[in-house]
Amino acid sequence: MNKAMFSGKAPKLTMKDLHAAAKRLKNWGRFGKDDEIGTLNYTTPDDIVAAARLVQRGRVISLALKYDQTGPQGAKSKYPALGRFNPIHLMTRTGTDAYSGVLDHRKIRGTDDIIIMPLQCGTQWDGLGHILYGDHMWNGYDCRNVTSAGAQKAGIEKTQEKMVGRGVLLDVARALGKRWLPDGFAIGAELLDYVAEKQKVAVGKGDYLLVRTGQIEHKFALKTWDGYSGGDAPGLAFDTLEWLHKKQVAAIVTDTWGAEVRPNQIAEANQPWHWIAIPCIGLTVGEIFDLAELGRDCARDKRYEFMFVAPALPITGAVGSPVNPLAIK
Amino acid sequence: MNKAMFSGKAPKLTMKDLHAAAKRLKNWGRFGKDDEIGTLNYTTPDDIVAAARLVQRGRVISLALKYDQTGPQGAKSKYPALGRFNPIHLMTRTGTDAYSGVLDHRKIRGTDDIIIMPLQCGTQWDGLGHILYGDHMWNGYDCRNVTSAGAQKAGIEKTQEKMVGRGVLLDVARALGKRWLPDGFAIGAELLDYVAEKQKVAVGKGDYLLVRTGQIEHKFALKTWDGYSGGDAPGLAFDTLEWLHKKQVAAIVTDTWGAEVRPNQIAEANQPWHWIAIPCIGLTVGEIFDLAELGRDCARDKRYEFMFVAPALPITGAVGSPVNPLAIK
Amino acid sequence: MNKAMFSGKAPKLTMKDLHAAAKRLKNWGRFGKDDEIGTLNYTTPDDIVAAARLVQRGRVISLALKYDQTGPQGAKSKYPALGRFNPIHLMTRTGTDAYSGVLDHRKIRGTDDIIIMPLQCGTQWDGLGHILYGDHMWNGYDCRNVTSAGAQKAGIEKTQEKMVGRGVLLDVARALGKRWLPDGFAIGAELLDYVAEKQKVAVGKGDYLLVRTGQIEHKFALKTWDGYSGGDAPGLAFDTLEWLHKKQVAAIVTDTWGAEVRPNQIAEANQPWHWIAIPCIGLTVGEIFDLAELGRDCARDKRYEFMFVAPALPITGAVGSPVNPLAIK
Amino acid sequence: MNKAMFSGKAPKLTMKDLHAAAKRLKNWGRFGKDDEIGTLNYTTPDDIVAAARLVQRGRVISLALKYDQTGPQGAKSKYPALGRFNPIHLMTRTGTDAYSGVLDHRKIRGTDDIIIMPLQCGTQWDGLGHILYGDHMWNGYDCRNVTSAGAQKAGIEKTQEKMVGRGVLLDVARALGKRWLPDGFAIGAELLDYVAEKQKVAVGKGDYLLVRTGQIEHKFALKTWDGYSGGDAPGLAFDTLEWLHKKQVAAIVTDTWGAEVRPNQIAEANQPWHWIAIPCIGLTVGEIFDLAELGRDCARDKRYEFMFVAPALPITGAVGSPVNPLAIK
Repeated sequence: MNKAMFSGKAPKLTMKDLHAAAKRLKNWGRFGKDDEIGTLNYTTPDDIVAAARLVQRGRVISLALKYDQTGPQGAKSKYPALGRFNPIHLMTRTGTDAYSGVLDHRKIRGTDDIIIMPLQCGTQWDGLGHILYGDHMWNGYDCRNVTSAGAQKAGIEKTQEKMVGRGVLLDVARALGKRWLPDGFAIGAELLDYVAEKQKVAVGKGDYLLVRTGQIEHKFALKTWDGYSGGDAPGLAFDTLEWLHKKQVAAIVTDTWGAEVRPNQIAEANQPWHWIAIPCIGLTVGEIFDLAELGRDCARDKRYEFMFVAPALPITGAVGSPVNPLAIK
Repeated sequence: MNKAMFSGKAPKLTMKDLHAAAKRLKNWGRFGKDDEIGTLNYTTPDDIVAAARLVQRGRVISLALKYDQTGPQGAKSKYPALGRFNPIHLMTRTGTDAYSGVLDHRKIRGTDDIIIMPLQCGTQWDGLGHILYGDHMWNGYDCRNVTSAGAQKAGIEKTQEKMVGRGVLLDVARALGKRWLPDGFAIGAELLDYVAEKQKVAVGKGDYLLVRTGQIEHKFALKTWDGYSGGDAPGLAFDTLEWLHKKQVAAIVTDTWGAEVRPNQIAEANQPWHWIAIPCIGLTVGEIFDLAELGRDCARDKRYEFMFVAPALPITGAVGSPVNPLAIK
Repeated sequence: MNKAMFSGKAPKLTMKDLHAAAKRLKNWGRFGKDDEIGTLNYTTPDDIVAAARLVQRGRVISLALKYDQTGPQGAKSKYPALGRFNPIHLMTRTGTDAYSGVLDHRKIRGTDDIIIMPLQCGTQWDGLGHILYGDHMWNGYDCRNVTSAGAQKAGIEKTQEKMVGRGVLLDVARALGKRWLPDGFAIGAELLDYVAEKQKVAVGKGDYLLVRTGQIEHKFALKTWDGYSGGDAPGLAFDTLEWLHKKQVAAIVTDTWGAEVRPNQIAEANQPWHWIAIPCIGLTVGEIFDLAELGRDCARDKRYEFMFVAPALPITGAVGSPVNPLAIK
Repeated sequence: MNKAMFSGKAPKLTMKDLHAAAKRLKNWGRFGKDDEIGTLNYTTPDDIVAAARLVQRGRVISLALKYDQTGPQGAKSKYPALGRFNPIHLMTRTGTDAYSGVLDHRKIRGTDDIIIMPLQCGTQWDGLGHILYGDHMWNGYDCRNVTSAGAQKAGIEKTQEKMVGRGVLLDVARALGKRWLPDGFAIGAELLDYVAEKQKVAVGKGDYLLVRTGQIEHKFALKTWDGYSGGDAPGLAFDTLEWLHKKQVAAIVTDTWGAEVRPNQIAEANQPWHWIAIPCIGLTVGEIFDLAELGRDCARDKRYEFMFVAPALPITGAVGSPVNPLAIK
């Protein structure tokens, strides 16, 4: 038995490694020169029909954190602030207005509300405009397509009819007999294979892959989000890029802020895995998904596959989207 | 053949009729005194399993309008303004920042964004806190539960694991051989039965019912949203409340701004159908759903039922939510 | 010499005291039944002319904290959160867009920006709609005039041509030989008289009175805003209400979050001084004014009076306003 | 008598003219290589003392439009939309909440509010980061100093203790015997001299110059803002740049959306006067000032000079600011 893969250790990288991976794994042009959704293309109609067949108990599990002031933003972090904040929810007409009689001139007692939120503040999809590689974005588009007016290429609205398929949970923490993985624990490709085998599930082309580290439960246990956003975390090792590329997954999801292991495997780049995953491979990434209940449910019924439906809001030009992702079993 | 139901006419109502309907159709307590989701309770796990079986071609159809400045708000309207506006999408880091080199101190070229939007500005779910009846909200809760701090009862986040089930489209416009119904056309209960029969589909308990009037296509054809938000519209007649109540649908959806026919059947109340549907019956209502492509698809394959997945964002205390609703066939 | 006034101690109050003060000091009707600006009426044109004569060195001192993410919101507080946050400043066109060439189709390289801010988040005027007394607001208006649509009475826009007059600084901390007063230090009426006398300045009708506690400098010295917003603080004792009422000042300003001493002199009411000052006396209150440099300047030239110009933004229906207040000497 | 200056006509420009003016009028370095406020430096303390002496009647005239949904944004315009909208004012606690008893657990009945507004949406200062010349901003700073994170150079907060001085109104419309100048009417340098002479007022170094065209009154008379923002307008001709440069005014203000005459004197550049005024001369520009009442008052007392106090909000990194400008006479 290979003990290395259980160690949570991953080798240091150089910028040369990073650029070599970019070159090796680059999918630019693979889905046509006008493509704007990358690996979401892998899921076929037949995959969707098959995914629907996985619905056997009629249970719906939401993987979203609630969007409110208790969310993960605003806590202490080692990382320089990114200007993200928890959702600000405001009312424009209320039941107290109604009770006070001030709405009755409208002949209806109705309430309304407004949200102000960073699209990256909670459970979220990273769109393909979210990370750039040099002066380029996904599919080789010029990075200047993402201006103050939004993403003119690869906006999240292009995924409007995607995010449906077979979901597979790899519950790494549970497979290793832990409630959660420690910060800095690197999940390598070999470990993903180990967990899949242990769970008796195969990851295939067009799947939506969900990887559970347990970090959200860890933060809930600590009763603080300190160190979550931008902090150290368990997560994917750089070598999973090759694995994900080869598996041809549609998208990858974790329960952490930033998918990959932190501290990163390299000091010269921040989030090196992202440099490759999003702009080079064209991989849509889901972050801050709450996988706690899904993990428990899968452990109980021993089925780690399910129908996965997690539609992004089609916000034109957005580089991400909040989402209420559903695992339907 | 009853020609009246095709006339689009509906009788005038009195406030007495309205209050009588409230009394007759009130579901308060039906799902328990602590219930906060109303008729969404009707859908059972078995219904969800059955709904998944309807996925046969693997086609996903989004029913959302894009969220952007081309949305339906801000156009001319007869209705007093409600303070709704189209989504404001703002960037906090851009590809042009990246190109300019100003992000490189972060060692990653990433972009981020923010949305400011009324939860009722586009394709949307009305939550059960959205309309009040007198001093009460759904299930008899005091309307003062909806304060400037949000809905302490029946917030949209309570529906987090709902909005999955069998969808049924009643394409009224198409069944009547029209591209769209004219403004003011009332769709009565009898007409819903007629369309269902013509389409060879039965509406059942726990279904998500979608009713197409074609008004969105009408506005697109006119190249203006003038008169859409708050204006005259084809829509449900008051007698459909009884029908929906009896059918025990989970939720009702239309492609109009306000579900019911406008001008309304009564001058003393604004949106009289809403007075009953949401706070009394506990019916979740979807509005501004774009049913054009779904209508075409159903007409082609003659199948008006499908898996429907339309998860609300769990925004704590919200009285509505934007949504990217999916019909999966 | 009365040592009590230097002790920073103030007697406990009862609700009866509070209501008695409301009755005794109430100015409702004093400025006409339609008045919406209260004691701002005290300043006459002659007062303004005289105030301008105080400008002798041509020095302008701003009393505003900068509006940005380093502001006083979001720090730790004993007080239940009020939903206030530091200003969120966002760009809609940038110099990096310009550099990237993406603006040139407009034939001009321009930038634009947006602010999202609570009107109470930094240096601010409390308008007369900000605090209510029972079911009433200033001048006896029904409190239901302040709805989700804003203040229909006594909105800050009514002060559009006010906030100009003679400013008087009572630098209490400096007069007591301290850099700042400790939290919980109550500044009583007698102490205000003492400081005025020591500074050789008289507070008169129509003046804008600024009281310096030094708390902002204290927080800067501690390098944290923790405990500032809603926390313990030096501040005005309840007996200053009578004094301010009698002096007929136009407005009162402090360098603290909430003007009055905290912990408050009573447990049953939060901010008891506010209960009387704003809705009963009709006194406009300025908070979070940075009086550090003004204090130094006045100490140097021994002149504690100056022209004061601090125009609120005329935001219709607002209960407060950010402000860049200027002392002109 | 030179009739040309009354014609409202101005010669066509070439890009060569524009670049020549940039070269000729460029003040880069004039106030030191680290300067960030440009011509605001011209006003001296003595000027401020002298300005205060102009206060003789104690009248305060606000030059601000109210900030609300009736503002000038959102109307029809020939100009491509800039993403500006009227202020969105939202309440976070209300009098109706208070009336409903839901605030009483706080032991105080208080209200709070929030504003969302483009800094250029109403009466406003253009900061020196607002317009760029090529790849540079004021004083030769690289335009990449204005990023999505705001203006790192020449932010409006640098003007925190400026915007105080002698104001001079040149009421061009009134001097020409008109209620307002027609759209497209160019106000040349010679005409400014004519008006000054007619009004018996001299424009001097360090003055804040206000030029009235009457366009706001025109729009009020028409009861629509259509065509105001970005539309045709009377305004300053290109040759006023030389004049303003020579006069060494501190800042220039108009009652129009964009200060200069529209249609512009050149097709190849949009707002050619701005290209020079802000980034080259370092001139702060005030726009959408309501000069109607000030015009009337000056006509009555024949005094076109006054104390001018118009402090920008010190929003860190902002390229503009809303302002409640006061003329004090």
